Amino acid sequence: MSDAISDTSDTAAAVPAADLPNLLIASNKIDGTKVATRDGDSLGSVYSFMINKRTGGATYAVLRLGGFLGMGKSYYPLPFEMLSYDPATDRYVVTIDRRLLEGGPSWANNPPEFNQAYADRVSNYYGVAPVDLSLS
Amino acid sequence: MSDAISDTSDTAAAVPAADLPNLLIASNKIDGTKVATRDGDSLGSVYSFMINKRTGGATYAVLRLGGFLGMGKSYYPLPFEMLSYDPATDRYVVTIDRRLLEGGPSWANNPPEFNQAYADRVSNYYGVAPVDLSLS
Repeated sequence: MSDAISDTSDTAAAVPAADLPNLLIASNKIDGTKVATRDGDSLGSVYSFMINKRTGGATYAVLRLGGFLGMGKSYYPLPFEMLSYDPATDRYVVTIDRRLLEGGPSWANNPPEFNQAYADRVSNYYGVAPVDLSLS
Repeated sequence: MSDAISDTSDTAAAVPAADLPNLLIASNKIDGTKVATRDGDSLGSVYSFMINKRTGGATYAVLRLGGFLGMGKSYYPLPFEMLSYDPATDRYVVTIDRRLLEGGPSWANNPPEFNQAYADRVSNYYGVAPVDLSLS
């Protein structure tokens, strides 16, 4: 932690963060965050996070990708644990093969109800543990 | 978990969730989520969550409250752990005294840079553990 960032005086709140990205992002500013492949190629951007209201944790990230097979923009939900944040470039890196993503659950114009069944479908496709979305 | 929610067939994704709230909320739909006091009185709404880009966790919730002392809408950041989600009413309940909130860090027209110094100020005010926002 740098001295500038760890400064806890009230006045420091007014100091611009210069060129350092901020580790916090407002939920209404997530749209557009860049996403790259592990090779560093631009893949698309984050459209939204699907957030567990109880825990506050981002459970899925919905990526917006364009140009696959000549079609328009499509939306690809991905388990959040498959994204890693790279502070050096202030973007996410996805460590799966692009073709795996292209074959995964997605939509173009009609977003699904992101309920237990759909969440299970996404988790199953990517081979991660299912998320319990029951309310009780 | 009810049978309806635990159904994992693909076709179930198209079934409307009826009157049950969904545990997941899209980050671009958080604005407007209701917030009540522990007595059940309406307090305001969530404007946004401040999300840790690395962990995906909501670290602070920014509440939008109006009418304090006759002024317009103001924004009050609160450590996320001070909110609890009530699925019965699909809203958050804040367990602190309203006057404590009114005296806390807030802004009206000029949002602060939500950096380490500001985050520490919020955490200190509410007496919760500081959050490390260093990028390294």
